[in-house]
Amino acid sequence: MHLPDLSEENAVSGRLIAQLTKIVGEKFLYSDEANRQQYARDETEDLMFLPDVVVKPADTQQVSQVMKHCFEHGIPVTPRGAGTGLSGGSLPVQKGVVLSMERFNRILDIDLRNLQATVEPGVVTQTFQEAVAEKGLFYPPDPASRGSCSLGGNLAHGSGGPRAVKYGVTRDYVLNLEVVLPSGEIIWTGANVLKNATGYNLTQLIVGSEGTLGIITKVVFKLLPYPTKNLVMLVPFASAEAACEAVARIFMAGIVPSCLEFMERDAIDKTIDYLGLPMVVPPHVQAHLLIEVDGNDMDALFKDAERIYEVLAPYETDEILLADTTEQKEILWQLRRKAAYAVRHTSVYKEEDTVVPRAELPKLLRGVKEIGHKYGFRSVCYGHVGDGNLHVNILKGDLSDYDWNHSVTEGIREIFHLVVSLGGTISGEHGIGLVQRPYIGIALGEVQLELMRGIKRVFDPKGILNPGKIF
Amino acid sequence: MHLPDLSEENAVSGRLIAQLTKIVGEKFLYSDEANRQQYARDETEDLMFLPDVVVKPADTQQVSQVMKHCFEHGIPVTPRGAGTGLSGGSLPVQKGVVLSMERFNRILDIDLRNLQATVEPGVVTQTFQEAVAEKGLFYPPDPASRGSCSLGGNLAHGSGGPRAVKYGVTRDYVLNLEVVLPSGEIIWTGANVLKNATGYNLTQLIVGSEGTLGIITKVVFKLLPYPTKNLVMLVPFASAEAACEAVARIFMAGIVPSCLEFMERDAIDKTIDYLGLPMVVPPHVQAHLLIEVDGNDMDALFKDAERIYEVLAPYETDEILLADTTEQKEILWQLRRKAAYAVRHTSVYKEEDTVVPRAELPKLLRGVKEIGHKYGFRSVCYGHVGDGNLHVNILKGDLSDYDWNHSVTEGIREIFHLVVSLGGTISGEHGIGLVQRPYIGIALGEVQLELMRGIKRVFDPKGILNPGKIF
Repeated sequence: MHLPDLSEENAVSGRLIAQLTKIVGEKFLYSDEANRQQYARDETEDLMFLPDVVVKPADTQQVSQVMKHCFEHGIPVTPRGAGTGLSGGSLPVQKGVVLSMERFNRILDIDLRNLQATVEPGVVTQTFQEAVAEKGLFYPPDPASRGSCSLGGNLAHGSGGPRAVKYGVTRDYVLNLEVVLPSGEIIWTGANVLKNATGYNLTQLIVGSEGTLGIITKVVFKLLPYPTKNLVMLVPFASAEAACEAVARIFMAGIVPSCLEFMERDAIDKTIDYLGLPMVVPPHVQAHLLIEVDGNDMDALFKDAERIYEVLAPYETDEILLADTTEQKEILWQLRRKAAYAVRHTSVYKEEDTVVPRAELPKLLRGVKEIGHKYGFRSVCYGHVGDGNLHVNILKGDLSDYDWNHSVTEGIREIFHLVVSLGGTISGEHGIGLVQRPYIGIALGEVQLELMRGIKRVFDPKGILNPGKIF
Repeated sequence: MHLPDLSEENAVSGRLIAQLTKIVGEKFLYSDEANRQQYARDETEDLMFLPDVVVKPADTQQVSQVMKHCFEHGIPVTPRGAGTGLSGGSLPVQKGVVLSMERFNRILDIDLRNLQATVEPGVVTQTFQEAVAEKGLFYPPDPASRGSCSLGGNLAHGSGGPRAVKYGVTRDYVLNLEVVLPSGEIIWTGANVLKNATGYNLTQLIVGSEGTLGIITKVVFKLLPYPTKNLVMLVPFASAEAACEAVARIFMAGIVPSCLEFMERDAIDKTIDYLGLPMVVPPHVQAHLLIEVDGNDMDALFKDAERIYEVLAPYETDEILLADTTEQKEILWQLRRKAAYAVRHTSVYKEEDTVVPRAELPKLLRGVKEIGHKYGFRSVCYGHVGDGNLHVNILKGDLSDYDWNHSVTEGIREIFHLVVSLGGTISGEHGIGLVQRPYIGIALGEVQLELMRGIKRVFDPKGILNPGKIF
């Protein structure tokens, strides 16, 4: 994809830039190309869209004023968190203003009495996790990019991560949101309570709306007591489909692991290479499951582990690695967490975020491989299979640009049709953004889409906020 | 409240009745007064609104056809589940058609491979719980009325119950909904998956919308493995405020009980009377906490119980009753579950469904009593205090009708202002419906309400579905 032609007339007038400068201050507005380029990409493929101007407001009032001006003048505004998205959600496809939330980086309150925290959305997820962990509290959502992504981006897409299988995704921890609407008006969506039956659920409507309905400026999260103990197992399978099948059986045996992750052979090999680990995977191993159980009682966890061993006994597995020291666990987790980086390191790629009911995973995996064979592309799969969420990484490798843009697109379409036929959908945690937008009609019919467009018009009658995304 | 004058012209014409009869069959349409009276009330105070006609469709297609006709003719339609609501949500305040979902009473599928179930919304909550429990599965939401309420009503209000404190409310178990829109169009709101980042969250928008946006005709729920063990404790406190304070301390000690319920002295006495139990509460006891911990390992649960004892040691409590037989547990649970029935048995009442961050409960309880004193009413409080959800039952007792309709209303208004000032809101699980509608402006500002009205117009441009509710 190429840069847009910079010689074309700039949509943002000098007058508007002056107004925006007055709001955020000269230091926090970029109109020069070098700085604007920093905000032209996220982590989605090789896409690049240059904004006309970048603003970095300091607080809710400034966001509100920026929105008021842009609303009045019909200028597109694309909100941006840490820019680690995988669906192009923060790319300014219609140019205009990128509104970066990077200065919203304060943890405002950790309320030990109520097990709640109030934070700004620009806080990096891991920073927040560590801050609450220091107080003995637990914020479970942990996307692979947790060291660099921000809470606001997690909210925009309803991000998950390995622990979602037991603890739920980002949306399950949100109690209340302060939001600036496209008109500049400021609202709280709910109340700071664990249950709320007071009107429509605006909170859950904003979460996952990918910055198209409003800009989140504060979040109240609920927290849990930190579970003090866990056990981690790495289980090598001779068959990838069998590994997927085993996933459902673990739950059927009455166990809810705190993580249940899958990695294809290719993903493990690439990650071992990438991390330079002194490990060799035996030739007959085709996939791994990484399984964690957690709680406060070690005896109970060993009993869980025993039951997992029993469930897995009928499968052809290599020796199960049981990690109970922090170091061993860390190595196993690195293997999983770095898989995405390792795979992307080797080739241009497209990452599809498929999700199905978990017992349908073997069918999905088989289908993905058959479709790849049909359209001539290779895929590396891993993901949060406890949730039925399989990340399918399609590698460009030696494919021609033509095949990459045409055959692969056809193949993706076929994968998504398969996913929907299995009761699933086309994104589990990455969002639709820009790159999945052409496929939304596979998952949602015209009636649902028309409802969503109607809701969009209620919040954003001029369509200025993150235009060109989702539908 | 009086019956509307039956001599006034009927809003539903003979022609429409003929059309509706053609859709649902003569046997499943009532236009005679005796039958219509059966659908004129729910469990909210002494309210009564007579519908013009009652239809009981058999399936989604019939619901769709009923809606198409009513939409075309602009006839109000009020959907109705089991009629156990406490906010008047199913009362046909604008007359027209009551659409009863009572024939949607089938459990369509219990999917053991995926731990999911597909059900119709007219299934009674307890029936569903028992059906999945027989297969070793767990559907946690358990409103006090679970023996008579239906899943559809639970969805309409986002109902909770005692287990919500650990397991979440009804909305946390919904994966996907089949919904008939006011226009008669039929949609599924999502997919049968545990994570979904594909467009706006229509599922969570429908849940809690109190039948104002669409009529739920099928539900896909997620289920959990059934926890095999639990322990139940009844803790008598010398001070009700101290009991409320202890609630937050239990969580702060790292324990997430599976239930944490509060009952004021008055509630316990009335329930013991109502059930005819051979129990006497010592005179100095002012409140009880009912605490349950659950899991799969009894040793771990006894450790939890020990830690709870440690947390409670500094409080002035009477002897703690620890139930570990099924019979003992059942008696303790009866005490809590029947409290609402016992209290209502003694007087006309209004039940307020207050919810605050849990550490604010002592302030809430003190405030409720002070406000009652000021306005001259007596209240009996109990509730799901682990969630910060306190049910405040205001008793009519000897109050004059004038005081009941005026002073008490002023008092409720003051209680709700207090709740909001503590970070809470005016309904945790009962919904706004008809009776809390006058107070909605205390919890939500005009901007939020205007967004909600806008969403309502997107789904229901003619405003025919459950009119006169929420806002």
